[in-house]
Amino acid sequence: MKAARYHGRGDIRIDEIPEPEAGPGQVKIAVDWCGICGSDLHEFLEGPLFIPPPGSPHPISGATLPVPMGHEFAGTVAELGDGVTGLRVGDKVAVEPYLVCGSCAACAAGRYNICRNFGFVGLSGSPGAGFSERCVVDQRWVHPLGELGTDVGALVEPLAVGYHAVRLSALPKDGTAVVFGAGPIGLVTIASLKAQGAGQVISVEPAAARKAKAPAAGADVVLDPTEVDVPAEVRALTEGAGADVAFECAGIDAVLASAVGSVRPGGQVVNVAIWGHPATVQMNALVAAEVSVIGSLAYCGDHPATIALLADGTVEAGQFITARIGLDELVEGGFRQLIENKDEHVKILVSPGGLA
Amino acid sequence: MKAARYHGRGDIRIDEIPEPEAGPGQVKIAVDWCGICGSDLHEFLEGPLFIPPPGSPHPISGATLPVPMGHEFAGTVAELGDGVTGLRVGDKVAVEPYLVCGSCAACAAGRYNICRNFGFVGLSGSPGAGFSERCVVDQRWVHPLGELGTDVGALVEPLAVGYHAVRLSALPKDGTAVVFGAGPIGLVTIASLKAQGAGQVISVEPAAARKAKAPAAGADVVLDPTEVDVPAEVRALTEGAGADVAFECAGIDAVLASAVGSVRPGGQVVNVAIWGHPATVQMNALVAAEVSVIGSLAYCGDHPATIALLADGTVEAGQFITARIGLDELVEGGFRQLIENKDEHVKILVSPGGLA
Repeated sequence: MKAARYHGRGDIRIDEIPEPEAGPGQVKIAVDWCGICGSDLHEFLEGPLFIPPPGSPHPISGATLPVPMGHEFAGTVAELGDGVTGLRVGDKVAVEPYLVCGSCAACAAGRYNICRNFGFVGLSGSPGAGFSERCVVDQRWVHPLGELGTDVGALVEPLAVGYHAVRLSALPKDGTAVVFGAGPIGLVTIASLKAQGAGQVISVEPAAARKAKAPAAGADVVLDPTEVDVPAEVRALTEGAGADVAFECAGIDAVLASAVGSVRPGGQVVNVAIWGHPATVQMNALVAAEVSVIGSLAYCGDHPATIALLADGTVEAGQFITARIGLDELVEGGFRQLIENKDEHVKILVSPGGLA
Repeated sequence: MKAARYHGRGDIRIDEIPEPEAGPGQVKIAVDWCGICGSDLHEFLEGPLFIPPPGSPHPISGATLPVPMGHEFAGTVAELGDGVTGLRVGDKVAVEPYLVCGSCAACAAGRYNICRNFGFVGLSGSPGAGFSERCVVDQRWVHPLGELGTDVGALVEPLAVGYHAVRLSALPKDGTAVVFGAGPIGLVTIASLKAQGAGQVISVEPAAARKAKAPAAGADVVLDPTEVDVPAEVRALTEGAGADVAFECAGIDAVLASAVGSVRPGGQVVNVAIWGHPATVQMNALVAAEVSVIGSLAYCGDHPATIALLADGTVEAGQFITARIGLDELVEGGFRQLIENKDEHVKILVSPGGLA
């Protein structure tokens, strides 16, 4: 079968690899759509970062590069391994693309997203992945989509990142949240905030194309940090208090400082960004207002609720799909397009089986 | 009356100033004992930092330097202003040394310790302070000591810092805490942890003289970070999980990183330190384990509970008094002694009225 594999920095190839079979308890999925994630771009441009390089096999998969890529995917059940119940061939499903050890302190506490040995299907080595025609995963990671299309289903994964960050936060009902950054993760965080009961959502974003997308995702106010003093504006919008929670979806020192300055006394900053460098943090600013900063990673049990928000129309996810391409176009029409025109795009969906 | 005043960096003088009178709702206190705080040393060596310099009067006091110093103090009620009830001349009392505005978002939420305009008696300009023979404060800030001596009473303020940090934390009953740094604040945090129900308290400190003091304060284990891998040792002491909470009482990049690495998945780091520089923080380490970092500032409603812990013997505070001096010795016998022999001392108490 065809699979896009990562061979090294700047080197992603459409390879022919053996089609995997579904073992006991496993499900084979014919991938319909897979989104390109920011972390895929980081691996392409600066990697291998998370992908296991030669000589350092992943502790769970045992794999090193080349590995199949793609982890934001949905498709159709193609085959059920022995012992799988509750699913039928032809069901539309989204995949929670984890490899976890099941034995560390985090797994023991049910927080498998921060498993100390964790990996991802599509990054850490797996029998197929999202940019493959077929992929095999344990049933645990398969989430039925019901009547939802698999194109929207491919957005469940990034939406679950936003849903999880909001769920992890201390957002009170009808509270005010500020979301820094209106790239894909910022936009899905905005949508998740509205879906989870935020009263006021303030988006902070300098890029014109991204600013324009924030209101449709659910932002009540959009602030441009090149035009206004963001903490002062947020206070003005909250009767002088500051926001209850801020979400850092940019990974930039000045943005983190602005997030800390924008929350109320005792408020919270949720860091959703993955950082490319160590942050410089004014710790005394955390002390002076007893602000907390918490890291949020991916998702953990958030897929069913995220699918429900899409199914009942609470979140209109079609808005996030800005292009659709076939697998052969992955690098030029996908990765390069996102790198060169990143502010124009939210999600580019890839069809491993080719466009209809 | 005699009062030690801060005139500028390295310039603390024992001045003769007018004795303040207790206005309506105020209490005049004859200061018996006042401890020297690390922040006093920072002002002496590197200030003015928190002390208002010429041209920048404090928003509440309206004062600029020279200002009376000393904020860790206790004494005897000398005079009651009109309308003060529940106190008698001769009562022994500790002082919560705040200036707060009463009108900002933090004050409105009852979190006056993070008042946006806050200041301290003894730093921000006040009618006398802890290194003065007399001091006048609003009754709100006066806490009766009952039968406790005013020498131990002078320790209520730093102990309340530790008590507050522990109360602010998410420490579960019988949980494990790691305290980084065994200077005065680290030691009172250790004592507060034991008093508030911690199961296991691990002290991390490299200096021999400080390490020796940690067990008496309540540490079950003392780790030397120059000898062991602290996060690995903490995991070994917690069945592989990591501590529930860590307290950063040092203000050092590597210590903060070690604190983040020492807590369990989803654990918490409480920053108690005041930092002299911006911190360099690996944000991805917060993300990978969904760790939170919260700043803790001083105290807020913690004095009565802290006094109760001293009164019933839960915390034996006499151990923290390592010298007693008269006011005339303040700079040479106090400040310089702490700067030159900092690891030998915890608290040096100063008697503005002279030693008996």
